[in-house]
Amino acid sequence: MQHLLNGDNATAVGLQDRGLQYGDGLFETIAVRAGRLEFWHRHVKRLRLGCQRLDMAAPDEQLLLAEARRLLHDRSEAVIKLIVTRGEGGRGYRAPESAHTSPNRIVSVYDWPGYPAGNETGGIVARYCTTPLGINPLLAGVKHLNRLEQVMARSEWDDKEIHEGLMADVHGHIVEGTMSNLFFVRDGTLHSPDLSNCGVAGIVRDVILDLARAANIPLEIGRFNRGDINGAEELFVSNSLIGVWPLRQLEQRHYRVGPLTRQIIAAVNAARRNDAGHETV
Amino acid sequence: MQHLLNGDNATAVGLQDRGLQYGDGLFETIAVRAGRLEFWHRHVKRLRLGCQRLDMAAPDEQLLLAEARRLLHDRSEAVIKLIVTRGEGGRGYRAPESAHTSPNRIVSVYDWPGYPAGNETGGIVARYCTTPLGINPLLAGVKHLNRLEQVMARSEWDDKEIHEGLMADVHGHIVEGTMSNLFFVRDGTLHSPDLSNCGVAGIVRDVILDLARAANIPLEIGRFNRGDINGAEELFVSNSLIGVWPLRQLEQRHYRVGPLTRQIIAAVNAARRNDAGHETV
Repeated sequence: MQHLLNGDNATAVGLQDRGLQYGDGLFETIAVRAGRLEFWHRHVKRLRLGCQRLDMAAPDEQLLLAEARRLLHDRSEAVIKLIVTRGEGGRGYRAPESAHTSPNRIVSVYDWPGYPAGNETGGIVARYCTTPLGINPLLAGVKHLNRLEQVMARSEWDDKEIHEGLMADVHGHIVEGTMSNLFFVRDGTLHSPDLSNCGVAGIVRDVILDLARAANIPLEIGRFNRGDINGAEELFVSNSLIGVWPLRQLEQRHYRVGPLTRQIIAAVNAARRNDAGHETV
Repeated sequence: MQHLLNGDNATAVGLQDRGLQYGDGLFETIAVRAGRLEFWHRHVKRLRLGCQRLDMAAPDEQLLLAEARRLLHDRSEAVIKLIVTRGEGGRGYRAPESAHTSPNRIVSVYDWPGYPAGNETGGIVARYCTTPLGINPLLAGVKHLNRLEQVMARSEWDDKEIHEGLMADVHGHIVEGTMSNLFFVRDGTLHSPDLSNCGVAGIVRDVILDLARAANIPLEIGRFNRGDINGAEELFVSNSLIGVWPLRQLEQRHYRVGPLTRQIIAAVNAARRNDAGHETV
């Protein structure tokens, strides 16, 4: 791994950085495969919207791209992570006036994780987490740096056979996985949990929703509980690195990798290769 | 300001630190006045309990104290901030096995803020914030590093005459201030919001609850809405640095600095000077 902090090689960030002090910032995790920064324009758009939500200046997108390319240095497979924090600030929640601080921009490169191909073709095993997702419409959807809930949920199991844990909000609505968004199929309709109260609005989730609408697949975004999930015929999760992983088992229930899931996987993989919103390494 | 990172003078922390990446850690803010680290033992106890809740190794308390003293260097008035993060970790929410990482311990010294004495004697002006507090019983009470809600709430106003903003949870229950806990008096009973769903269990709040019980002051911990607050005869907020500040105005309503508030202020100030759980500089 290697990092650029505001364009300079770095291994550390100031102890006064508000990202450390308060989680006052945002991040993006971007798949680099076959020499493409997949869905680059969707990622920087989400980052820009997140900066608006947190009332922070958004970093220059051409600068981010140039820095990602510098780090990639012709690598065709990798992970690029972007972090933007509000910058250095004094003690206290109040953000310094913008004249006195500027956001810190961290671009990092990591090795491509190389997930087993079988996760996509044969599906994974998942569980339910007991750590709830807090409800806060103001921060819902935003990929911000306050991620203790996900850390706590991911710490609930230590079994390499279990690849993901599903999280419910405090009312028991199933919202997402610890690192992924959730979809399920019932009676031919594709369902995905509403994210207006909590959760991260994933890039691949948005891609799937766009693909489903374009293909006239019946779609329902709503609030679902375990009973709804139990009644599903197909289940899958998505994120920018994994793409789509079907669930072949959730707790004690088994699911098949069904036709709609296979259709979505093919469409997402085509979009990863062909989407006009990518950038090259 | 000056910092020690794991005992060494430092200005920066690794970019892989999970405090930055996920807000995966805890903090304490400790008043140093008249040569005393006020309520030191309460602070380190809360830190220890927080580490248990997050399943992190707690730092050695004698080490923390020695490092705070090194930074204070005979200063009799200052602020000591402790931050403990889960340490460095790879990309991904899963915490590294404890054999592969160790928590990072940051001890910082800041100047004493020197609040106007009138805040305590005459009271302050406060407002209601619109940023809600998310509900998550698992993290409620813990002074963790996921503090975006407080940052957002504190950014709602930029008026030096307004010293604090009160925050409600998503159900409209008034929980606390952005940087303080809330108390109010009605019909001779001291009230303070329940913190089992959200909020920070403040050290001075605990001191006040102990003092109230010892003095047989009628006490009610519960869920209260704006109507309850509107019916209050006295209102005040507390934290480790400010001690107790009465509210003389909340939005358009005016309050007096009443007898129970004055009694609590005197008792808290006596405890700050005399509490057996302090340490000397």
